Amino acid sequence: MKNIKPAQLILYIQQLFRSMGCSIDDSLICADVLVKAEMRGISSHGLSRLPEYIALFDNGRVNGSNRPVFVRERVSTALIDGNKTFGMISSDMAMRTAIEKAKVAGTGWVSVRNSYHFGIAGYYSMLALEHNMIGIAMTNANPLVAPYRGSKGMLGTNPMSVAIPALKNPPIVIDMATAPISRGKLDIFAAAGMAVEEGLVQDHSGKGVTDSSVLKKGGAILPLGVDTEHAAHKGYCLSAMVDLLSAVLPGANFGPLVVPTLSYLGNRGEEDRGIGHFFGAISIDAFRDVSEFFEDVDLWIQLLREAPAIDKNLPVLVPGDPERVNETNSIEKGIQLTDELYDELLMVGARFNIPLKLLG
Amino acid sequence: MKNIKPAQLILYIQQLFRSMGCSIDDSLICADVLVKAEMRGISSHGLSRLPEYIALFDNGRVNGSNRPVFVRERVSTALIDGNKTFGMISSDMAMRTAIEKAKVAGTGWVSVRNSYHFGIAGYYSMLALEHNMIGIAMTNANPLVAPYRGSKGMLGTNPMSVAIPALKNPPIVIDMATAPISRGKLDIFAAAGMAVEEGLVQDHSGKGVTDSSVLKKGGAILPLGVDTEHAAHKGYCLSAMVDLLSAVLPGANFGPLVVPTLSYLGNRGEEDRGIGHFFGAISIDAFRDVSEFFEDVDLWIQLLREAPAIDKNLPVLVPGDPERVNETNSIEKGIQLTDELYDELLMVGARFNIPLKLLG
Repeated sequence: MKNIKPAQLILYIQQLFRSMGCSIDDSLICADVLVKAEMRGISSHGLSRLPEYIALFDNGRVNGSNRPVFVRERVSTALIDGNKTFGMISSDMAMRTAIEKAKVAGTGWVSVRNSYHFGIAGYYSMLALEHNMIGIAMTNANPLVAPYRGSKGMLGTNPMSVAIPALKNPPIVIDMATAPISRGKLDIFAAAGMAVEEGLVQDHSGKGVTDSSVLKKGGAILPLGVDTEHAAHKGYCLSAMVDLLSAVLPGANFGPLVVPTLSYLGNRGEEDRGIGHFFGAISIDAFRDVSEFFEDVDLWIQLLREAPAIDKNLPVLVPGDPERVNETNSIEKGIQLTDELYDELLMVGARFNIPLKLLG
Repeated sequence: MKNIKPAQLILYIQQLFRSMGCSIDDSLICADVLVKAEMRGISSHGLSRLPEYIALFDNGRVNGSNRPVFVRERVSTALIDGNKTFGMISSDMAMRTAIEKAKVAGTGWVSVRNSYHFGIAGYYSMLALEHNMIGIAMTNANPLVAPYRGSKGMLGTNPMSVAIPALKNPPIVIDMATAPISRGKLDIFAAAGMAVEEGLVQDHSGKGVTDSSVLKKGGAILPLGVDTEHAAHKGYCLSAMVDLLSAVLPGANFGPLVVPTLSYLGNRGEEDRGIGHFFGAISIDAFRDVSEFFEDVDLWIQLLREAPAIDKNLPVLVPGDPERVNETNSIEKGIQLTDELYDELLMVGARFNIPLKLLG
């Protein structure tokens, strides 16, 4: 394991995105999102995804020097065309636009098309917090999740995040894939040669399996809820909701028509409209006095933390607790990178002639 | 079984709500919501809930002649105080307000406090469809669902609905409790003396059981996802999201502080701020050309309907399909009521001196 300070890592990754054409500001955003994922312990959406971003650049699907463009606007809404730059760049712009609109209209809602993988959804939803707003972020993704009753991946793991500000307590931050397991986590199991629990993936015929590399063999992830008796149709509805709001609303590639970033998914020859995202900002003050809201949120947090636990050693948590502990640890003690990831960073840096001394 | 025409049933139920003080218009809304639930096959949220509405009236918690009031407004938002009238009345007003705001601002978002059980969420989300808008509705409810790791019911089954308009196809209508089973369905199992599957409910200590009447013994419903391995923490996050947006945002009773409508839940002596709802309307035109959107939605529906099914006899459905089939059947063939429900309707009608001949 290698231990690296967050700021050091951000500078290094920033250089990488600079090398792919991004401006100073844009490359800083990209680096900040990826390092934030590592800090929050969501390493499945952090630096391990760098090869995918670089592949998008190498294939000419993404040009870091492009700027997203506004296509349509109303007082509480906007549509942004990502213009085939990195997803983090259009997403940051979109969320900040949603916040500005919420200041005027009470809420702001911005959808993005022609975009690519945006990192962790929680990065964007949390931008709303300092404005005393609730932040919302969601995105569609590679078609890896089977619809209820289906044998084939038709929808993405389609994450969504909702961040809610509190006063005495840290904010509540929901940040989750709408499928029971993410592709990134399956990759980690597969790399370790480990099987997964039953009820998470199925093979190409729809038969439940525990093979963590089944996606590469035509398999699919099951919807949240697993089976008929435990309401897998609801997990399907959630994935569908995120796909429709994130991709169909702005006019991005949706469902099975997403042009994959994974070679084993093949390519249906669709026109590349990228994937899509949906961001929202809700001004608390538009609904009620902010101080009264904070009082209630703090009480909500207290009541849930004090909820009777089945096992006293495993207390009830508030959404965002584990990620916040990780983030605090990263700030205090640095980010732990595996040797494999560190070596990969060095290799990538060498290719782009980035001074390796930045990594210490 | 008794067969009754929807219009006939609406007139009868309308009289009932008239007798509880509602105006002609308001009573028609209440009746329409409850009969729509029966028509769509969601009888757990239909006429079987009448005793609960009547109990709210009898206990003086609801006064049908009250009118909801606007508390705060921005161009895309409003807060409505339900003013302790029936939930259907404040909810219909809130959703129509959201639609009007979306015409101007691109989106409209209205939250409601001091309200009560509003029937099916899908009734309100679907009001947006004829305006070429996406409709959203959610509500909190009696604390019956345990948080992940918790032994006690702290959150409601907290349903949410998203309705998306299509052109060639019927609309997509997601309408679901965020828990794997609703209280209404458990009641139906309990009435039939049947156990439920494992992984749906737990006893007062948090031990998984199959007893369908366990809620009356201090038990709780599990979150969607069932256990750690299948991401029950995500089901918890969903229930939390709906509670925070529906109840904490407007200032209603939230989480375990909801003043129950179920005697077996006891009463913590909280001030009765009612439950809360959250409604949204998103104008398609604010984001892209409506005709292009419809083209994509129709393609989305087609692709999902044609998705390879694990069992050819159980095709992949589009959210809302089963409920729409039920609704069409009800219009063509009438609504089937069990003898028990019919007798209850007669009894209730007799109490309020409603001409029983209305039921045929």
